[in-house]
Amino acid sequence: MELGTANGRDPKYDVLFEPVQIGPKTLKNRFYQVPHCIGAGSEKPGFQAYHRAIKAEGGWAAVCTEYCSIHPESDDTMRVSARIWDEGDVRNLAYMCDRLHAFGALAGIELWYGGPHAPNMESRHTARGPSQIPSDFEVNSYPRTMDSDDIALVQRYYVDAAIRARDAGFDIIYVYGAHSYLPLQFLSPFYNKRTDAYGGSFENRARFWRETLEQVREAVGDTCAIASRFAVDDPGPTGVKVGEDGVRFVEHVDHLVDVWDLTVGNIAEWGQNAGPSRFFVQGHERPNTGPVKAGQHTDKPVIGVGRITDPDMMIEIIASGEYDIIGAARPSISDPFLPNKIAEGRLDDIRRCIGCNQCISRWEIGGPPMICTQNATAGEEYRRGWHPERFTRATNAEKRVLVVGAGPAGMECAVTLGRRGMSKVDLVEAEPDVGGSFNYIHKLGYAQGDGDFRGAAKGLDEFYYLVDYRKKQLAKLDNVEVHTGRRLDAAGVRDWDADIVVVATGASWRTDGMNPATHETIPGADATLPWQATPKEIALGTKRLTGRILVLETEAYHMGASMCQRLASEGHEVFFLTQMDSFMDYMEYTLEAPMMHRDLHRLGVQMYPATMVERIDPGHVTAFNMWHEERKEHFAVDGVVLVTQRASNDALYHELKADREALTAAGIGGLYLIGDASAPRMPPDAIFDGHRLAREIDSANPAIPLPFIRERRLWGATSDNDYENQLQGPRDTDTVRKGAAEHPVAAF
Amino acid sequence: MELGTANGRDPKYDVLFEPVQIGPKTLKNRFYQVPHCIGAGSEKPGFQAYHRAIKAEGGWAAVCTEYCSIHPESDDTMRVSARIWDEGDVRNLAYMCDRLHAFGALAGIELWYGGPHAPNMESRHTARGPSQIPSDFEVNSYPRTMDSDDIALVQRYYVDAAIRARDAGFDIIYVYGAHSYLPLQFLSPFYNKRTDAYGGSFENRARFWRETLEQVREAVGDTCAIASRFAVDDPGPTGVKVGEDGVRFVEHVDHLVDVWDLTVGNIAEWGQNAGPSRFFVQGHERPNTGPVKAGQHTDKPVIGVGRITDPDMMIEIIASGEYDIIGAARPSISDPFLPNKIAEGRLDDIRRCIGCNQCISRWEIGGPPMICTQNATAGEEYRRGWHPERFTRATNAEKRVLVVGAGPAGMECAVTLGRRGMSKVDLVEAEPDVGGSFNYIHKLGYAQGDGDFRGAAKGLDEFYYLVDYRKKQLAKLDNVEVHTGRRLDAAGVRDWDADIVVVATGASWRTDGMNPATHETIPGADATLPWQATPKEIALGTKRLTGRILVLETEAYHMGASMCQRLASEGHEVFFLTQMDSFMDYMEYTLEAPMMHRDLHRLGVQMYPATMVERIDPGHVTAFNMWHEERKEHFAVDGVVLVTQRASNDALYHELKADREALTAAGIGGLYLIGDASAPRMPPDAIFDGHRLAREIDSANPAIPLPFIRERRLWGATSDNDYENQLQGPRDTDTVRKGAAEHPVAAF
Repeated sequence: MELGTANGRDPKYDVLFEPVQIGPKTLKNRFYQVPHCIGAGSEKPGFQAYHRAIKAEGGWAAVCTEYCSIHPESDDTMRVSARIWDEGDVRNLAYMCDRLHAFGALAGIELWYGGPHAPNMESRHTARGPSQIPSDFEVNSYPRTMDSDDIALVQRYYVDAAIRARDAGFDIIYVYGAHSYLPLQFLSPFYNKRTDAYGGSFENRARFWRETLEQVREAVGDTCAIASRFAVDDPGPTGVKVGEDGVRFVEHVDHLVDVWDLTVGNIAEWGQNAGPSRFFVQGHERPNTGPVKAGQHTDKPVIGVGRITDPDMMIEIIASGEYDIIGAARPSISDPFLPNKIAEGRLDDIRRCIGCNQCISRWEIGGPPMICTQNATAGEEYRRGWHPERFTRATNAEKRVLVVGAGPAGMECAVTLGRRGMSKVDLVEAEPDVGGSFNYIHKLGYAQGDGDFRGAAKGLDEFYYLVDYRKKQLAKLDNVEVHTGRRLDAAGVRDWDADIVVVATGASWRTDGMNPATHETIPGADATLPWQATPKEIALGTKRLTGRILVLETEAYHMGASMCQRLASEGHEVFFLTQMDSFMDYMEYTLEAPMMHRDLHRLGVQMYPATMVERIDPGHVTAFNMWHEERKEHFAVDGVVLVTQRASNDALYHELKADREALTAAGIGGLYLIGDASAPRMPPDAIFDGHRLAREIDSANPAIPLPFIRERRLWGATSDNDYENQLQGPRDTDTVRKGAAEHPVAAF
Repeated sequence: MELGTANGRDPKYDVLFEPVQIGPKTLKNRFYQVPHCIGAGSEKPGFQAYHRAIKAEGGWAAVCTEYCSIHPESDDTMRVSARIWDEGDVRNLAYMCDRLHAFGALAGIELWYGGPHAPNMESRHTARGPSQIPSDFEVNSYPRTMDSDDIALVQRYYVDAAIRARDAGFDIIYVYGAHSYLPLQFLSPFYNKRTDAYGGSFENRARFWRETLEQVREAVGDTCAIASRFAVDDPGPTGVKVGEDGVRFVEHVDHLVDVWDLTVGNIAEWGQNAGPSRFFVQGHERPNTGPVKAGQHTDKPVIGVGRITDPDMMIEIIASGEYDIIGAARPSISDPFLPNKIAEGRLDDIRRCIGCNQCISRWEIGGPPMICTQNATAGEEYRRGWHPERFTRATNAEKRVLVVGAGPAGMECAVTLGRRGMSKVDLVEAEPDVGGSFNYIHKLGYAQGDGDFRGAAKGLDEFYYLVDYRKKQLAKLDNVEVHTGRRLDAAGVRDWDADIVVVATGASWRTDGMNPATHETIPGADATLPWQATPKEIALGTKRLTGRILVLETEAYHMGASMCQRLASEGHEVFFLTQMDSFMDYMEYTLEAPMMHRDLHRLGVQMYPATMVERIDPGHVTAFNMWHEERKEHFAVDGVVLVTQRASNDALYHELKADREALTAAGIGGLYLIGDASAPRMPPDAIFDGHRLAREIDSANPAIPLPFIRERRLWGATSDNDYENQLQGPRDTDTVRKGAAEHPVAAF
């Protein structure tokens, strides 16, 4: 099924579809996927090519690789970058270029040399850098100080890589200087302590980058557009300021650049660039990067970013003269068809990025493929063959499906089943509205400005885009019906006129303190008491605690910090405890942690790492140090919030499953458990689970995911087909590859 | 050059070379490489096959994979495990089996299902577990609670995987229950809260594992030996105790197992098993695992581990009846030829594991290939073609090489150049003895017992094995001469009768507070003053501080903690500051952190994370909070230790390089900078750097490493040769693949 059709757009958006000339190349419109990581690199060429090509198909005028290492000296392992080190990389990346060109998009490559920020854990080479100071981003990663020979050598690496890139078919070649990588290290006095011709004065600090641009332009500038990504402003001490060396550098090398890709910040805190929606509004870089073009410091087109998904903001930006080109990373992941949907006037169909930065978390974690909360197909284009906008009609489309629970997983499953043409999909929700946990999560965050730094706490309201998009899509699908305010028990499910039942009843916070640290409940913990609370109660304001409050967090994502933020901003004295050695580890991955640390410090939250609650008594909590159990901490508090763990609401599923005869009598041939009701996890996992089931509802056993294409070296492979063929090997003992038709759970 | 020759062994070691029957298979001797990670998995089949085969060649009777996932539901991404999910994995792992068999070794595979410890970040499947409590090891990783169908399903996964493993050629098939993975999760009440037939009583908790062993044995036990790895004792609350359910379980399923691989501990703190030498003596698991066999609780052969490299300890263990088989992970990495060297009576040639756990750090980090401080060839067997014991004669062997500096890099370079048959190698050291930084590092640690837990601080004395091994090898090489107590200046180098000069002059601690946090020196920092010190001065005792002492650590490895340990144990009140949010991040990777945390807490060290020194005055240090700069901390202290950063001692190199005419006149045709003198890094990096230069001393440009074979999917590959051929592509602009013969630095 193809979704939607062109139905014309408001002419005010026409400006977004004007072509833009960049050097020898022409962008067909103003939509540009700036370089961003996905976990493919040059190592997974199918993933790389298909993921990028979906965007070309969706209307983006140019689509870029992630950062692409020019030489084994700049090896970011444990993270995944692209690489253009050798002929194999040329071959792998050429496949991406070919697919982009087939859809009329230009292909861009971001040539990268990391200096001390590249730990070289695979190549084991020695990174070179302007001055010998260990990385402020990596642990214990020192560069070798570059002498003039080293400078010439690394510039040669750039040129060699640019030539390889041209031969692979790239149209746009970057010399990448944002995020504190080598060219910016030379420009910034934070990194550059040199006293020779490459340090000291502005001209000297600019010399490395300028010469590199000159040499790359000389080598490939006749056929390729030369781009530079430049962090033109940095709120911290590591980079440059837009009003000083920022515009100065743009003017200095403007003649060498065909298009500027302007950003903010540094790598140690790149949440200032990829701003999470908890702290940053859309278009948040406009005050930093906008003045370059608006102030006429460049004659070249400027790309700007900032999680921009609103077409009206896009045209306002173009009109303001700040940017010529709307750059996007996260919005292009969340909706690869954003340009086409605007072009066709289908604004309601845009899956707007919610700014949760789960995509980014995977790069920060190091290896896993990128995921997206909004778009379950992101990263699955090649390996699972999923297209974000195209759905095949299910081979069992005559079946009627009942989905119980309209949280993220249930909504996504129902929408996808609807798109797959099931004869009837009923989505039944006990609460008055769809949305599940997002109905309280989106109320978190804190609405008072933080004067310390860019990134004022502004709340998670954009998380509601997740619900909003699905609500609109559910309303558009004729074969899907939503029933709210209706709680089904097992008999109610069996009485429903359904062939297939999907249980998506979510999860609840445990009220007894059960937790991953001790694997026991906590004596005295009972969030049903008036002076103890669950996160949901605090978020919704359905329970008000008084006085001094202790928040126990054993999850390491945002909920504990969100509780502290809320309660401290209401005037409570707050004690924040976790069994871990540091707080909110997962928020480090989503880049929210620095802003949250500042906010909690500003609010005076008292933090106790490696401290676990031992027992809770009225007015008094006893805790112990994880490394010295005899050392107790005592807290005189009036209230306690238990952010310990959630538990699946799976009773309905198990009750149904326990009586198979009754199910059979009711004509129910399939029963599935998805989302948090199966296991409470991150929101993108719940959405994926619902989407995956619907995509495979007509497989031999939808309960078990079908295999996916794995891209790794395959010993003895003689063709690309060998990779796909691994999935269909004739081994009759194999539960996996046969779709588990005969596995003991049968269709349940 | 082949190193050494068989010259007979002391007959007391003969017992180590007796065969051992395990089910249908025979181990040719008592040396057994237990499963351990290397970063290859099934994804890099060449790495996997060659690394393991080197050990088979070196005399090990059996060599195993790392943990090998049985199904995409147990996907450890971001870490690298082996996998036997499909036909491709069978093909990749069969290559390893073939190579092991060619050397007469048995091949073992460790079938693994992680439950909640498997984050499934690649497959996106939902892990199943006995009870729904999030992982105590992973962040926010919840399992789906297994019902009886799920149990049967996962047991089916084990059987399917075992059959695939048999078909791949494996001789020994594990059901892996150590390290808190699924079978142990069922056995341990910490994880298992079930009330059905799989929870509660011992028999019920043992049921899952027992049934799984029965089914796997039924499927493949006729042709393969069935092994089980079992953490028979756990000092923490997560596992079982040897005197209770430990021996009880062994007795319960002894009839189903052909060989026991016994360990200690859990995954959240598996340093209790892979004990770092800072805290654990060799054979440290004997009190925990020894009683099983010695107490006659099993009729089957028992494998025991504990960093055992001492042949006398090995025979004592066999004589004691504790273990039948000497298991090894780290000792087999450090010296793959350990069995053959014992067999041949070449005990001086054994490269003994120093217990630094750098190998393990790479698994903990997630993706990078394993490295070894002692053995620079570990992980390089396939991709760089390096053999730990075989060296080709250099094509320029007529050259005379001067190596300046006999620290780890210089020693390793000189040894390797000697083995490559250079006509003369002179290793010149300014200090009275060789060893470099290891002459003070090995004095660190703390010699007083810690009663809290297994793992008493015992000092880094085993780190000196690194120096000791190289000293002995240097003495054996006729073409290498060591000159100590001789400091060379540039003129001295030029006057030396050398064709090639290697500068390996190490690094020094900065005394001015320059650091990766602020990239500035610290006002008032001056470790040349009597009341401020460098780590080296404290380690050697050449400077004694008095009273209250502040230790500033900006490196995140062990040096700051080592200083605190030393000073606090001497009775000082110690304040420990770092700019990071947690302390000793890299010691988390080496598994030393938990013991060190306990030790620092026990010693009363006062810890201030996210706190950076602003200025140092006599008697007073001012610091600020990284997240709230206005919040100052004041410390009234008598002394300060600056663990901020090191600086390369590269002045000699640059002086020599600056006068090329003089070099040429002196007949010096090659000048290279290696080890910490190039960039101060971890010890394995310095050793690697020295080894690498010597391995490639006859390449077109030894200054730049030759390319290595990269194992990833290669689009359009039609044979395995395509991978190697990537290295020789005919692209004349390419600096890398041509050995950089014409790069601007020429031979320098």
